[in-house]
Amino acid sequence: MTLAACEVLEKAEVIVGYKTYLELIPNFLVGKEVISSEMMKEVERCRIALTAAETGKQVALVSGGDPGIYAMAGLVYQLARESGFAGTIEVVPGLAAINSCAARLGAPLMHDFAAVSLSDLLTPWELIEKRLSAAAMADFVTAIYNPKSKRRTDQIVRAREIFLAHRDASTPVGIVTAATRENEKIAITTLANMLDHEITMQSTLIIGNSQTYTWNDLIITPRGYGNKYEL
Amino acid sequence: MTLAACEVLEKAEVIVGYKTYLELIPNFLVGKEVISSEMMKEVERCRIALTAAETGKQVALVSGGDPGIYAMAGLVYQLARESGFAGTIEVVPGLAAINSCAARLGAPLMHDFAAVSLSDLLTPWELIEKRLSAAAMADFVTAIYNPKSKRRTDQIVRAREIFLAHRDASTPVGIVTAATRENEKIAITTLANMLDHEITMQSTLIIGNSQTYTWNDLIITPRGYGNKYEL
Repeated sequence: MTLAACEVLEKAEVIVGYKTYLELIPNFLVGKEVISSEMMKEVERCRIALTAAETGKQVALVSGGDPGIYAMAGLVYQLARESGFAGTIEVVPGLAAINSCAARLGAPLMHDFAAVSLSDLLTPWELIEKRLSAAAMADFVTAIYNPKSKRRTDQIVRAREIFLAHRDASTPVGIVTAATRENEKIAITTLANMLDHEITMQSTLIIGNSQTYTWNDLIITPRGYGNKYEL
Repeated sequence: MTLAACEVLEKAEVIVGYKTYLELIPNFLVGKEVISSEMMKEVERCRIALTAAETGKQVALVSGGDPGIYAMAGLVYQLARESGFAGTIEVVPGLAAINSCAARLGAPLMHDFAAVSLSDLLTPWELIEKRLSAAAMADFVTAIYNPKSKRRTDQIVRAREIFLAHRDASTPVGIVTAATRENEKIAITTLANMLDHEITMQSTLIIGNSQTYTWNDLIITPRGYGNKYEL
């Protein structure tokens, strides 16, 4: 958590959030009006936060990761726009999966990268495939969000095939599951072997580019294709 | 700054960093061995940090943004590997330009995105063009790092052309210069008009995807192409 997020939570009169996230910050909840809700109730949570803010109260809506990356910020603005919300909204950036997973894996994001979610709930699968192909073809280091769920198990298989059409089977792949949580798991593997490792809905994958290598169970992408730093 | 970064700085016996960054954290330097250096001395700074760590001291190497995104983490590992460093290295993730600029602009990164640096110092320009085309063609929201320097002024012109070949001229573009610093500047513009705004080596651009819209001087990308959230 950032110092800026701590300050906002301290000043807040109302704290709204998903139950599991609020349980991680018990100290900030003391003496506050706390409204917690279950998973998948994003719209409800945002509406409650906006309604409370319209009464003039300082409201903090808690998000996991970075609210600005595949998260709550957009929904808050969308609902604010549609309801004619007249107050002030501030997005406090945080550490997204891309930041924390990269740190856990070594230094995979030292060069151009793409992030692709495999969830086809809101996005046509054809477009997701197009993005995977584009990222693979143009040698982007690629972070895969939402690789799998109970319902969706084929997408990660297809994503791997697409990358194998453009990148060597020995390309390093990192799998971080439940990053920074108690049950965090890290696997350093390759495009060839990645499906032999556990991948869940809590996993984020990072696939290296053509220059990425492993050292001491870390994934490292050089900063370029030449070598500015002759050593 | 994150609480984890504060903890590491408090525990450190030696703090190494670029002068301008160390000036931002005076309270953490009291009573420490402080080694500051000028810009562009990245290799020297990493070597000093590694050497100090090999004497058994707790060393913190300070980086701007997120050390794991286009930053120092890779160089530290590269030098550690080549010198046979035997100590422990931990990357403490932070807020990259992509996190802080997105927060400043609204919610542009709600869907798949790519980050491309226009610096051709270490990367062939042909590959950078290939990446820009791939990102534009596959409708990635795209963050442009290092858009311009005193020496390099044509790349951003070419990047815009590439996007215009795939995306509407009215596509929202956000330009954040010197994010979170005193001299921070934000411009909300379009692909058509982006070159009328100041773009410097301290700027990061975010180009929306085909669904991105503006509202109240904010850039918002919907979470999908359908609409899960009927409102």
